[in-house]
Amino acid sequence: MSQLQHAMIILSKTFNDYAGKEGKKDMLNKGEVKTLLEKELPSLLQEAKNPGEVDKFMESLDLDGDSEVNFTEFIILVARVACIIHFYKK
Amino acid sequence: MSQLQHAMIILSKTFNDYAGKEGKKDMLNKGEVKTLLEKELPSLLQEAKNPGEVDKFMESLDLDGDSEVNFTEFIILVARVACIIHFYKK
Repeated sequence: MSQLQHAMIILSKTFNDYAGKEGKKDMLNKGEVKTLLEKELPSLLQEAKNPGEVDKFMESLDLDGDSEVNFTEFIILVARVACIIHFYKK
Repeated sequence: MSQLQHAMIILSKTFNDYAGKEGKKDMLNKGEVKTLLEKELPSLLQEAKNPGEVDKFMESLDLDGDSEVNFTEFIILVARVACIIHFYKK
């Protein structure tokens, strides 16, 4: 398996690890998004000390407005953060 | 480092590994895109036996029309393929 395929498998596995915790197994609800952000991207939430920050994140991620985050919506977050990491490292 | 951060670092590293081969170090030219697809996502090109397939890929990736692929354009490809992998695995 190539390094790029490996990275994509990790993305899918990470989503499943958190989406599978409660409710629908293929969707992240608000609690699952909060846990995912806390464990996987702590630096994003560290900057956000405001307790309403998770709600704002949910709103920005939940493009179809169903109050949950599907894999496509999750991958858009990943793309945004990967760009921040990539350009920040320069 | 979390598994999600690790995956994002791999994405950035993969882009840099190929973009750095020739020309601008922060852009993939057509030859670098071809090499990246052949080495990292061979299954995408296996399905495409048509020799014009790399040109079609370039066109679909090169959103700003500068004949090169920047990291943001690369990550859109990654997002698309990650969705295919994620939903295909079900």
